Amino acid sequence: MNEKLSHYDEAGQAHMVDVSAKAQTRREAVAAAFVELSDAVLAALPQNPKGNPLEVARFAGIQAAKRTSELIPMCHPLALSFVDVQATVVAGGVAIEATAATVAGTGVEMEAMVAASVAALTVYDMTKALDKGIRIREVVLESKSGGKSGDYRREPSKTA
Amino acid sequence: MNEKLSHYDEAGQAHMVDVSAKAQTRREAVAAAFVELSDAVLAALPQNPKGNPLEVARFAGIQAAKRTSELIPMCHPLALSFVDVQATVVAGGVAIEATAATVAGTGVEMEAMVAASVAALTVYDMTKALDKGIRIREVVLESKSGGKSGDYRREPSKTA
Amino acid sequence: MNEKLSHYDEAGQAHMVDVSAKAQTRREAVAAAFVELSDAVLAALPQNPKGNPLEVARFAGIQAAKRTSELIPMCHPLALSFVDVQATVVAGGVAIEATAATVAGTGVEMEAMVAASVAALTVYDMTKALDKGIRIREVVLESKSGGKSGDYRREPSKTA
Amino acid sequence: MNEKLSHYDEAGQAHMVDVSAKAQTRREAVAAAFVELSDAVLAALPQNPKGNPLEVARFAGIQAAKRTSELIPMCHPLALSFVDVQATVVAGGVAIEATAATVAGTGVEMEAMVAASVAALTVYDMTKALDKGIRIREVVLESKSGGKSGDYRREPSKTA
Amino acid sequence: MNEKLSHYDEAGQAHMVDVSAKAQTRREAVAAAFVELSDAVLAALPQNPKGNPLEVARFAGIQAAKRTSELIPMCHPLALSFVDVQATVVAGGVAIEATAATVAGTGVEMEAMVAASVAALTVYDMTKALDKGIRIREVVLESKSGGKSGDYRREPSKTA
Amino acid sequence: MNEKLSHYDEAGQAHMVDVSAKAQTRREAVAAAFVELSDAVLAALPQNPKGNPLEVARFAGIQAAKRTSELIPMCHPLALSFVDVQATVVAGGVAIEATAATVAGTGVEMEAMVAASVAALTVYDMTKALDKGIRIREVVLESKSGGKSGDYRREPSKTA
Repeated sequence: MNEKLSHYDEAGQAHMVDVSAKAQTRREAVAAAFVELSDAVLAALPQNPKGNPLEVARFAGIQAAKRTSELIPMCHPLALSFVDVQATVVAGGVAIEATAATVAGTGVEMEAMVAASVAALTVYDMTKALDKGIRIREVVLESKSGGKSGDYRREPSKTA
Repeated sequence: MNEKLSHYDEAGQAHMVDVSAKAQTRREAVAAAFVELSDAVLAALPQNPKGNPLEVARFAGIQAAKRTSELIPMCHPLALSFVDVQATVVAGGVAIEATAATVAGTGVEMEAMVAASVAALTVYDMTKALDKGIRIREVVLESKSGGKSGDYRREPSKTA
Repeated sequence: MNEKLSHYDEAGQAHMVDVSAKAQTRREAVAAAFVELSDAVLAALPQNPKGNPLEVARFAGIQAAKRTSELIPMCHPLALSFVDVQATVVAGGVAIEATAATVAGTGVEMEAMVAASVAALTVYDMTKALDKGIRIREVVLESKSGGKSGDYRREPSKTA
Repeated sequence: MNEKLSHYDEAGQAHMVDVSAKAQTRREAVAAAFVELSDAVLAALPQNPKGNPLEVARFAGIQAAKRTSELIPMCHPLALSFVDVQATVVAGGVAIEATAATVAGTGVEMEAMVAASVAALTVYDMTKALDKGIRIREVVLESKSGGKSGDYRREPSKTA
Repeated sequence: MNEKLSHYDEAGQAHMVDVSAKAQTRREAVAAAFVELSDAVLAALPQNPKGNPLEVARFAGIQAAKRTSELIPMCHPLALSFVDVQATVVAGGVAIEATAATVAGTGVEMEAMVAASVAALTVYDMTKALDKGIRIREVVLESKSGGKSGDYRREPSKTA
Repeated sequence: MNEKLSHYDEAGQAHMVDVSAKAQTRREAVAAAFVELSDAVLAALPQNPKGNPLEVARFAGIQAAKRTSELIPMCHPLALSFVDVQATVVAGGVAIEATAATVAGTGVEMEAMVAASVAALTVYDMTKALDKGIRIREVVLESKSGGKSGDYRREPSKTA
């Protein structure tokens, strides 16, 4: 574990890290979110013959990933080479998985986290008329690869 | 409980609700998010004499609320009359509460939810060098008021 | 017919019209676009069991309408109360119809035109691997209502 | 001709193509749009001593090209190295030509198409007070170069 | 003179003011900026037969005004009813004047200040190849009207 | 000194420079702004136990730098590798210094100038309740390095 918060310089002031000298390598990150839905809401999801709320959520997540640096103050703008969001109905709700990749001097964990969050928020928006008590649970980083700090993979037990 | 998903017309196609004829009344919504942090990360938070990661998170949340309609496909653009975000260190992590208000024909639940989510994501971004396993738990609507569908207040027991 | 271009003052300089004193009434506009596709491309459209390119186009159009004032220099930012986009496979291509509405002191013709254009561009983007010669034909205003300048309805013969 | 729509994976789901491994080469694309104007409107265009509606359209097109990935869901954000838009009065209307270039792993056809479309929409906005029946005709890709899929040049006869 | 900074609550924390209950009245503000240019640069300005750098600056200022709430953290998003920017060659440089108006519960001083600043920055960008030492001097509020705090007009002597 | 304005082609038309063939080297620029404050306003600045107006200004400047190409028409979108803004209370006001860096084929002078300007505008916004006559004085380029046109450092005497 590092000794310092991210984005803090020696004077203890929040700042953006200078990545000018970092190697331009492929970086990938995967994040997950879970939207807890009651059985009644889950039953209503497939009743829409044409419009699929999970498709709306997927596109919203993909679009949001591209704007991560506008939303998260210390994130660098970068040319994403890939974003994907999957939204799947599972027991107890909708599971979202977002993947982002780039060839750059900085990682894309936040791009994946933003995509998963905005997709989850969109599922909430599409279902809130049925139940305002819906919860977004668990926005987490599943894995990252590439970059000097090494690869990371979430321990399965922590997601319980 | 309603019988239909939000944002779906009779043909089952996702769409934006027409709010032209709705009364322009004051609407307010409060959302909450919780970022679970280990004791080691919590201990590191106050070690920054100048830059306060919770202040960065507050501003990021306020700025994101204004862009809700760009992020959530079926949300209406509206003139927010108020946004605030509070970020507080509590046992086990950082508790975020976001409030949004408008005088309009549509509610601001999503503006509050987006503010809380982006503030939580920013806390994650500022602390992820210490622990990539940090979880954003519980993005929920705490309450809403104003509008035809009536007031809502989350039942305390559900936030367990 | 008026005597002057839109957005020009007496000195002949392009400017935004001052709508401060205009009545806040409901304004609506409908625009259409047509993407001409070969039979081979049209035949490929329904081969996608899950993702529907016309749904992607619909959401892109809705999202773009909200950002009209960022794209078109002399347009006023306004609180849209409704946007919808329909994309339908017809003989010879995809027909797009976009509707925008607001309660404001200025019309929403450009919002509808932008929504139709961006939906058409998205259909182009989703099909261009099959045929780069695809044409977007006919981005036109179908009708507008509300506002001092009166209602407008396109003459059917002009759309030939 | 390819066998598949763009942006669709094997499961038939719309997605962004992963361009991480693609060669960073110079890519250029040229798109055209045509705004059909009546003789009366064309005659009014040069009556503005200071503000030139075609200059407004040029700048709007250049600015829009930079935001292509925000407008078109499956487009990658990229660092454009060049954008230009020309707007010329010709017989029957205003001809727009937009050029975009980048050094990247993906093409810039959509950037050129967006620039041409938004420039055409801006001409419409500046002239619509004179004639609401103005049509944007023909938004097409004129040519592209660079990239694995080879160069493309529109056949002149198709633009008829 | 007030006793407190703007945007600070009783606990001394920066926040957005709640304007929900404020009267929706017409507010106007005028701001000015001055770009100091050497005689050599001023002489080069009119050498461009087609493109006018002051027109580019005008459009950039108008477009930026619409995005004030995205740039200035505590500003409310609002529906501007008017923006104009004038850029004039005077002795010693280019004088910029920006006007913004709205019918809302909050003023538009910052919209006028942002428009003037971005227009000045654009003049800088268009002339910096000739002289990097160009200075933007004096971004100031000239006047405001409307709203509870009363009208304001800058004292001429302060602009020295 | 060059003979031509920036961003003008041989026909005298404003355009974006094509940087496709320029070397991807590290470029850095530093800009400064000064917000002149009366003694009364300066005395009020430290009275805020929690929220620091200079921190709000810093974040606003950093966020604005990332959006330079959206604000300044002829600027290229690019992947900034570093942005920082410092805001310091000095005699007579607040001194702002903004630094931007990239590894690209074009410089980042405008990114630094935009960051300094928006930080200064935010200081104005936070203090304007105390004194509407506050002036932003001196937005200037302090230095630049990298790129073919060579390094630049402002002469100290000019900032008088």
